[in-house]
Amino acid sequence: MKQNIGVIGLSVMGSNLALNIADNGFEVAVFNRTTSVVDKMLKEHPHKNIVGRHSLQELVNGLEKPRKVVLMVKAGAAVDSLIEQLTPLLDKGDIIIDGGNSFFKDTQRRYELLLDKGINYFGVGVSGGEEGARFGPALMPGGDEVAYKEIRPILEAIAAKVNGVACCSYTSTGGAGHYVKMVHNGIEYGDMQLISEAYKVLKHLGDFSNKELQEIFEEWNKGELESYLIEITANIFKVKEENGDYLVDKILDKASQKGTGKWTNEQAIDLGIDVSVITSALNGRYMSNLKEERVKAEKEFSHKGYNVVTDKKYLAEIVKDALFISKIISYAQGFKLLQAAEKEYGWDFNYADIAKIFRGGCIIQAKILQNIIEAYQNNSQLENLIFDPFFKNIIETRQDNLREVAVLAIQNRLPLSAMTSAISYLDIYTTADSGANLIQAQRDYFGAHTFERTDKEGNYHYDWVGNNEK
Amino acid sequence: MKQNIGVIGLSVMGSNLALNIADNGFEVAVFNRTTSVVDKMLKEHPHKNIVGRHSLQELVNGLEKPRKVVLMVKAGAAVDSLIEQLTPLLDKGDIIIDGGNSFFKDTQRRYELLLDKGINYFGVGVSGGEEGARFGPALMPGGDEVAYKEIRPILEAIAAKVNGVACCSYTSTGGAGHYVKMVHNGIEYGDMQLISEAYKVLKHLGDFSNKELQEIFEEWNKGELESYLIEITANIFKVKEENGDYLVDKILDKASQKGTGKWTNEQAIDLGIDVSVITSALNGRYMSNLKEERVKAEKEFSHKGYNVVTDKKYLAEIVKDALFISKIISYAQGFKLLQAAEKEYGWDFNYADIAKIFRGGCIIQAKILQNIIEAYQNNSQLENLIFDPFFKNIIETRQDNLREVAVLAIQNRLPLSAMTSAISYLDIYTTADSGANLIQAQRDYFGAHTFERTDKEGNYHYDWVGNNEK
Repeated sequence: MKQNIGVIGLSVMGSNLALNIADNGFEVAVFNRTTSVVDKMLKEHPHKNIVGRHSLQELVNGLEKPRKVVLMVKAGAAVDSLIEQLTPLLDKGDIIIDGGNSFFKDTQRRYELLLDKGINYFGVGVSGGEEGARFGPALMPGGDEVAYKEIRPILEAIAAKVNGVACCSYTSTGGAGHYVKMVHNGIEYGDMQLISEAYKVLKHLGDFSNKELQEIFEEWNKGELESYLIEITANIFKVKEENGDYLVDKILDKASQKGTGKWTNEQAIDLGIDVSVITSALNGRYMSNLKEERVKAEKEFSHKGYNVVTDKKYLAEIVKDALFISKIISYAQGFKLLQAAEKEYGWDFNYADIAKIFRGGCIIQAKILQNIIEAYQNNSQLENLIFDPFFKNIIETRQDNLREVAVLAIQNRLPLSAMTSAISYLDIYTTADSGANLIQAQRDYFGAHTFERTDKEGNYHYDWVGNNEK
Repeated sequence: MKQNIGVIGLSVMGSNLALNIADNGFEVAVFNRTTSVVDKMLKEHPHKNIVGRHSLQELVNGLEKPRKVVLMVKAGAAVDSLIEQLTPLLDKGDIIIDGGNSFFKDTQRRYELLLDKGINYFGVGVSGGEEGARFGPALMPGGDEVAYKEIRPILEAIAAKVNGVACCSYTSTGGAGHYVKMVHNGIEYGDMQLISEAYKVLKHLGDFSNKELQEIFEEWNKGELESYLIEITANIFKVKEENGDYLVDKILDKASQKGTGKWTNEQAIDLGIDVSVITSALNGRYMSNLKEERVKAEKEFSHKGYNVVTDKKYLAEIVKDALFISKIISYAQGFKLLQAAEKEYGWDFNYADIAKIFRGGCIIQAKILQNIIEAYQNNSQLENLIFDPFFKNIIETRQDNLREVAVLAIQNRLPLSAMTSAISYLDIYTTADSGANLIQAQRDYFGAHTFERTDKEGNYHYDWVGNNEK
């Protein structure tokens, strides 16, 4: 009997994905470079649908055609090396799937390389960590659309489900799937930063206890802010150590990062897209690591102390709106980046489908995604999410609360970089006059870079220096 | 008679630089790939110290040893091609100088390549545009320190002078000079954005006329804000067209950019440095180009109109402080990036010397640079410019004015992304508690990424899910 699919690389992610596929009734062959890992996995997790293989040749020989091989190895050289070893063993029409965290440009390069050899290459963004891989991840496949029908049944079977719909949709060709995963992670950074800013305001300007914070986040998770990250935030505020202290208060405030947030920001800069909320989140992590400098600076710079808002209920209400509107703007920025990438790399995205993927299995799963799906279903050409009537109405009716939170923070020297970035973005985007006419005048003054005019077509240069020397 | 130096590439920048060198008493040989350009230049700008050459061989043969050849060609492939052609013609110890806008990593690569061949390669950042090249640019040379003495007399002679001191200092090895130039340009973006924000506040929230704006900028240029960019801004507000309209009001508010601002931001992301004011400036240009979307959004989103501040004198005073403090923070971010690059690329910067270069000849020349020089002369290990007593005192005594401007803007829906980014940076940097403990808790919750603790050493993981399932 032939296996339906092979999985190469049996770290926790790989073996969990293999088990997930097997649980869904598919026959799976597994392989690992260090072959003892194969035996170990089969011993620890014996499964009637899984067979172990000790060579790539053996793995490939056992697969039904077109063969499907999933790589679950460390992004980078290991992927290229495996492709090189696998290619001679495969036939035209066979399929290699990279389920790792590859940079989308690597995926695009490999896709094109294998296209020439008649092998279908898929880069699939997999979100949801170890738990997701085992019981239902969000999947973002990118590759050839015709070949996608060959892997679709397996991917949809193993993906997370929301109302019976799989959190898995074909994205577009080449590196598109890994690109969507990258933007997912950028949005995740934004969400986390915004939640931490809400936390800071409530804690410092509202004097909320951890118990009150837990209750507020739990309450928020019952409404429009419902999301995995709000849910776990509420749970975090439940955890006490043996001595009764809250664990969250003992955690050092230096946040690490693993690169995808950097990629998102580099892409945004490269494609000319303002993702300021996501950038603030990345910078927030960078600055958090300057702990010693921050401690020194706090001592050197006088601080009047926080002016506590006594109406906790009111503060919670305006912070909730601040968080929600900032989140909307962060998502709007992320989808703007996807739009720019679609154009730049020649992809063809269905934004409603992308939002559907994010609804389950992944870190940014949230109620708001249903509204995003509807926004793009109503208008697939939407230039910016904030034009959608649902989002526009929220912004129009509640933006004053976001502004009030920002003003309170600025007056209290409490940094809310992501929320204030969201305000700036909203105000830049909704203001016809950007003030950049002065910048163009300066550029033409010192560098003869020319300018356009509001009253006629063409590029103009003015002799500013000569005029002022008169 | 041998020439002291050769200049290759006779676009305006190249021929102006050659004329500048010749004016300073050095013998110059010039060459251009299209040789008719050589004859044209000599005809239009005959100079007793300049000889034209029609081949690289001829140019090289005429130079005194160690030979010095300046490339003034388009950054990229043209530089590599010339290096390839020149190398066989040169001897060990000869010197190639790239005076173009090369990316620092290209310069670093070329430096290392030629080091192996015994040829000294210098990447020299040249700022000041065509006028600067002709009559005194700011020069940022990077390369071998010992070989630098060979080119120093020429570079110092042609550079701009401030109080008799040349705006030219050796930076460090390899790509250091082009790196400094890149950061100069990033700071320039920040300065321009901040000035345009001051302009917007005065215009929209203070109802300043162009004449009043001209007077204010002229007044500011007599004090601590004195700088080339403030000076030309004042001049821009003088210019009227024949029909009496101000030219600045006819310029379309779409700001272009030519790449170095992108590089600065990409570097900051790569090295983990928050340069949020400079990032806001780049994003400001990107967003300015979405003119059609902004016009549509302004119509779709209701705007209450601006609430004008009637005390113009007071408004100008607080905007001046807002501009100055934001500028200090922008420079602090730029120098932080240089510090990170010094570490990352193994350079050895003298920050006071770098600030000296910027004092004249370039776009960011400003009075504040004297204060920066003194800050680093007093403490070459300064972690952040804002710790310097001069800057600290300004921030401590006047930051409330910056905050007031930001609050006015936020309440009036007037976007000041760079100024609010400056506030966020200041507040993040001077706050010991970043709130990132919650982010680390979230990361450990969903990805087992572990965290450090405030009360003991080591990395910890907690079973958040298990605890909450109890």
